[in-house]
Amino acid sequence: MRLLRVGAAGQERPCALAGDGSVRDMGSWVDDWAGPALEITAQRELAERFSRLWRSLPEVDVQRERIGPALRPGQILSIGLNYHRHAREAGMQVPDEPIVSSKSVHALAGPCDVLQLPREGSKTDWEVELGVVIGCRTQYLASPEQARACILGYCTGNDLSERSWLLERGGQWIKGKSFDGFAPLGPYLVTADEVPAPQRLELVCKVNGVIMQHDSTEDMIFDVDRLVHYLSQFMTLHPGDVILTGSPGGMALGRPDQPFLREGDVVEAEVVGLGAQRQVCRAPHG
Amino acid sequence: MRLLRVGAAGQERPCALAGDGSVRDMGSWVDDWAGPALEITAQRELAERFSRLWRSLPEVDVQRERIGPALRPGQILSIGLNYHRHAREAGMQVPDEPIVSSKSVHALAGPCDVLQLPREGSKTDWEVELGVVIGCRTQYLASPEQARACILGYCTGNDLSERSWLLERGGQWIKGKSFDGFAPLGPYLVTADEVPAPQRLELVCKVNGVIMQHDSTEDMIFDVDRLVHYLSQFMTLHPGDVILTGSPGGMALGRPDQPFLREGDVVEAEVVGLGAQRQVCRAPHG
Repeated sequence: MRLLRVGAAGQERPCALAGDGSVRDMGSWVDDWAGPALEITAQRELAERFSRLWRSLPEVDVQRERIGPALRPGQILSIGLNYHRHAREAGMQVPDEPIVSSKSVHALAGPCDVLQLPREGSKTDWEVELGVVIGCRTQYLASPEQARACILGYCTGNDLSERSWLLERGGQWIKGKSFDGFAPLGPYLVTADEVPAPQRLELVCKVNGVIMQHDSTEDMIFDVDRLVHYLSQFMTLHPGDVILTGSPGGMALGRPDQPFLREGDVVEAEVVGLGAQRQVCRAPHG
Repeated sequence: MRLLRVGAAGQERPCALAGDGSVRDMGSWVDDWAGPALEITAQRELAERFSRLWRSLPEVDVQRERIGPALRPGQILSIGLNYHRHAREAGMQVPDEPIVSSKSVHALAGPCDVLQLPREGSKTDWEVELGVVIGCRTQYLASPEQARACILGYCTGNDLSERSWLLERGGQWIKGKSFDGFAPLGPYLVTADEVPAPQRLELVCKVNGVIMQHDSTEDMIFDVDRLVHYLSQFMTLHPGDVILTGSPGGMALGRPDQPFLREGDVVEAEVVGLGAQRQVCRAPHG
């Protein structure tokens, strides 16, 4: 299944991509792509029903309506420094265990929403990432091998970060990662059955048409299963939690000219196969 | 108003304390103490209606039913090192600006729920704190003076922290603050009209009857208004967001014998006037 949410911000309806390529409104079956509706068992039942009955659901015109974030997550976790090549480029030591921070859940955005640059700080940076969506209540997993069964699916994510707030304002990273619009997720939440090889996905991020990041999830230091296993040791993960699994090299911060985002820049982030994002940057308001 | 939530975990009903001291179930008026129901304007209308009609609402017996967390927050932010005396005791420099981290929203607990100690790590510590509940959508406040109008109310909080995960596992604090049960909030969400002097509140935390923390919010480095103003510069706060505003000295970490919590210990945290919490520690399972 490819799940998506369509409608104005805060009023999105849960939809899915049907066999004929149309988008169908599932709002009569389910409240939203959030919480219990993202449990793996609930999803399997919905998928089965959808495969039989999608023609009975209203069609949605995504050319005329906004595509929102693919789900409404309970929390958004963000993994730092998780690509080998990136660590080498940055001259950073490979971490012994995953570096974990979080984004405000209110930073959530649709894949093509305008990106409002922060008013204070002028070092906004891109980070294309594979997003992992949890599909069951998960605590104290005994091994990484058990993690896969807890994953509902995957999505394209961009872990946008304001480097001045992240690095120059006293320690914890959440400050630089939580501005409105800094967590575009989607367009699709692609269920795991359609992503047989999550460690062989290509990630690309372009700015104004120039490729800035291009790598494969093969290069992850801690793979998806190890991340889920690790997180479950110190928190219970719930259906709808999102893990942004780290970004490959090529961010503005690591480039000689540090070309942080400016008004009018166009950021295109994509995990190939999961759908593309495109955000236009707007100057800070008032 | 004193709002509370009563019922089994995950099935709590929104309630309030009535003029005669009884607790009344407001479930027929409002879904839950969460999100839009915690907007200041919505709350004012509910309070007015409640003052007239509370006798028509069913009474709840809180002697026989569990009191849950006072609200269901959108996110839980946690301020570090925010008391002068604590900073001096710890030999730490007073920070130039607030230190901000977060807790998993799933760490939420009722004020008297059992505290399950983490399986791995044996340095669980108490941190009694004043919790601030946001009551409107708040971004880029121009001054701390504007913050007060965005605060719905206050609650007792305990920002429980597992020090080994917090300090010995690679940087970001979220790892040590997010175990199940590490965010008891309540019993009450006390609306701001009943808390005229939030910077003159007494905080107490006892372990097994012995006072471990005892201080006043007067000693805060960054007061509540400055914290809300500061946070609004890098994220939009929403109704139902909770800010745990930092803990005074007297935690286990800062004591010579480091008496971290053990099975059977009883932790009692209270912001005087906002209601008391009491948690019994249980050994790690499995």
